[in-house]
Amino acid sequence: MTSRTTSQPTSQSDRTAVTEDAVLAYHRGGKLAVCATAPLADAADLALAYTPGVARVCTAIAERPELSYDYTWKSSSVAVVSDGTAVLGLGNIGPEASLPVMEGKAILFRQLAGVNAVPIVLDCTDVDEIVDTVARLAPAFGGINLEDISAPRCFEIERRLQERLDIPVFHDDQHGTAVVTLAALWNAARVTGRELRELRAVVAGAGASGVAVARILLDAGIGDIVVCDSKGIVHEGRTDLNPAKRDLARDTNRRGLTGAIADAMLGADVFIGLSGSPMAEEPFATMAPGAIILALSNPDPEILPDRARRYAAVVGTGRSDFPNQVNNVLAFPGIFAGALKVRTPRITESMKLAAARALADVVAGELTPDRVLPDSFDPRVAPAVTEAVAAAARAEGLARV
Amino acid sequence: MTSRTTSQPTSQSDRTAVTEDAVLAYHRGGKLAVCATAPLADAADLALAYTPGVARVCTAIAERPELSYDYTWKSSSVAVVSDGTAVLGLGNIGPEASLPVMEGKAILFRQLAGVNAVPIVLDCTDVDEIVDTVARLAPAFGGINLEDISAPRCFEIERRLQERLDIPVFHDDQHGTAVVTLAALWNAARVTGRELRELRAVVAGAGASGVAVARILLDAGIGDIVVCDSKGIVHEGRTDLNPAKRDLARDTNRRGLTGAIADAMLGADVFIGLSGSPMAEEPFATMAPGAIILALSNPDPEILPDRARRYAAVVGTGRSDFPNQVNNVLAFPGIFAGALKVRTPRITESMKLAAARALADVVAGELTPDRVLPDSFDPRVAPAVTEAVAAAARAEGLARV
Repeated sequence: MTSRTTSQPTSQSDRTAVTEDAVLAYHRGGKLAVCATAPLADAADLALAYTPGVARVCTAIAERPELSYDYTWKSSSVAVVSDGTAVLGLGNIGPEASLPVMEGKAILFRQLAGVNAVPIVLDCTDVDEIVDTVARLAPAFGGINLEDISAPRCFEIERRLQERLDIPVFHDDQHGTAVVTLAALWNAARVTGRELRELRAVVAGAGASGVAVARILLDAGIGDIVVCDSKGIVHEGRTDLNPAKRDLARDTNRRGLTGAIADAMLGADVFIGLSGSPMAEEPFATMAPGAIILALSNPDPEILPDRARRYAAVVGTGRSDFPNQVNNVLAFPGIFAGALKVRTPRITESMKLAAARALADVVAGELTPDRVLPDSFDPRVAPAVTEAVAAAARAEGLARV
Repeated sequence: MTSRTTSQPTSQSDRTAVTEDAVLAYHRGGKLAVCATAPLADAADLALAYTPGVARVCTAIAERPELSYDYTWKSSSVAVVSDGTAVLGLGNIGPEASLPVMEGKAILFRQLAGVNAVPIVLDCTDVDEIVDTVARLAPAFGGINLEDISAPRCFEIERRLQERLDIPVFHDDQHGTAVVTLAALWNAARVTGRELRELRAVVAGAGASGVAVARILLDAGIGDIVVCDSKGIVHEGRTDLNPAKRDLARDTNRRGLTGAIADAMLGADVFIGLSGSPMAEEPFATMAPGAIILALSNPDPEILPDRARRYAAVVGTGRSDFPNQVNNVLAFPGIFAGALKVRTPRITESMKLAAARALADVVAGELTPDRVLPDSFDPRVAPAVTEAVAAAARAEGLARV
């Protein structure tokens, strides 16, 4: 067995080897356990937890199914479901290889918001099969966190599952990213003395996160937004668009731009990079004064912060080793904790906007261009997001307790 | 919220009410949590557990899928899967209402054998749908414990899943019961100075557990065995048998008995009750001297121990409030722990026989007619069963580590 303690490296190549072993050693045996929250030490406990006592609980739930929220872990549990088709920057690596990411996510759910998250990785990629499978395994869970499922399948999977289930179904790569990006943008506008409706934004990337970010910015009242995919600007004249992009073409790009991403960035106030890879530096030089650049692709952002700062007043990335990390971990624990708290059947746009507002407000009193978001482990974040989501659910009449 | 502390009851009706509340209070919020086994306290831990460090682990598994046993919780995790169709004595109560039982089982897995068990309750009862669903969610798990699925569907579901998956699929109502029953019978024979091949047994009930008990007794070399269902003795002349019972009719009942269960019990040495309800006392009086009666139906055994002792040398039930409790908890934690330890792709008859032998041997030195099995929480049991199953897997060439 590998030990978590490694000896001192003696050369650069040794250092690399030791670093890799440290990562693997950290993951040895996995990162999760299922623990008991009720005592079970003797036959008397067994008679309560298991037969014959448990029959009383089963009968109560059979008579009133909503009691499953009171007497099982459904009220605090979420399935983190992936098919392994769009994992990190690694792409389609399959279910087993995606499991370490889902376990990491489960730890974050536990640690930051007290949510019990169960990683479920699926040995299927067909939309119908995924929808059927998740719908059938749903009864033990209070919510479904879809994760790392490739676009455009993720849109249909989420929509159809939410139609079938009366618990929240939330594709975090879309909406978690959207919520944190909006929070960052709100504070970046605030710190540069502007409002969202004054800003013209470009989103590079029209995959799961790009589509969701564009949607939430529209809902939040952005001035204008132009989305670009690998072929250039998404506009209504294009004939190669999937349904999600066709909808975006209709709802964005008020000025009817066509052409390449460089055409969109000319004079733009905001750049949001969700394209997956670095891009040329020149278009950034053509953005408006006081620009906001959120280059979110991991591990290599569209533009590195030291270059981006030449053209922008606020710069953020998806990485922890630069300021202003746009990290979903700021959103998903609190969003699900809030949804579970009030047993809402779905997470609406208004709940997402409330989550973004609460997240932005956590650092409202300490804003600087290098601090438009709280740190990942800021203990104020999850409670604030939880309360905001629960309040929004109540305001919409979607709270069931 | 109900407190676990209840006030002193003041009358019999109060006492009953308080007892019921105590059961519900014990289950408040469920009985399980997902916990982290790796530290995650700061950004440095996050970089290991989640992005970017985790990518190294994902890549390693994508290249060599068997590494998922080393670097995820697959090596220690089991899905406890039910469709809620045959729960305790309650019958078909549906998935939500079955969840408290699965949570109880998960605690026992954790507490007795260090296995991470995840309750999965399915919103479907069709055989094809269950098989597809479980096969698709299997990649995160090192084993599948099927639970409380009604016969005869359980036989086909288990067989087809085991054909599709290279991890053990084990319907505990069948095989867990069979292993513990065999262990009890071995020791009951021992304590009365006989061997299994001298004994003629009657099994009342041809559901999931009855079929499995008959099978393991045949494999263990029982002298003869007659299985009875609600219509009477299972024999080859009957035209109303499902496939599992047809196979039993072929393999049991050497003397070709027909008629009612009373006809089978005349002169029999062993009675094993898995019928679900009490039965008339008269047939027990016709059994052979030194009879062994295991009346296992819960909560009401086929015959109560104080009556059964009139006709038998050894008496057992499924209940914790009488001696010789035949309880699956003596088998399933160790069986899965052993299977996971050597990563066997399936649990064979030889592994089940080894588990039963190890379980019986735990109390070999302390046998009395009232102690043919260890207590449910005897700490010697799970390690002994674990080692026996692992050794049997190695002997069969089915150990993968």
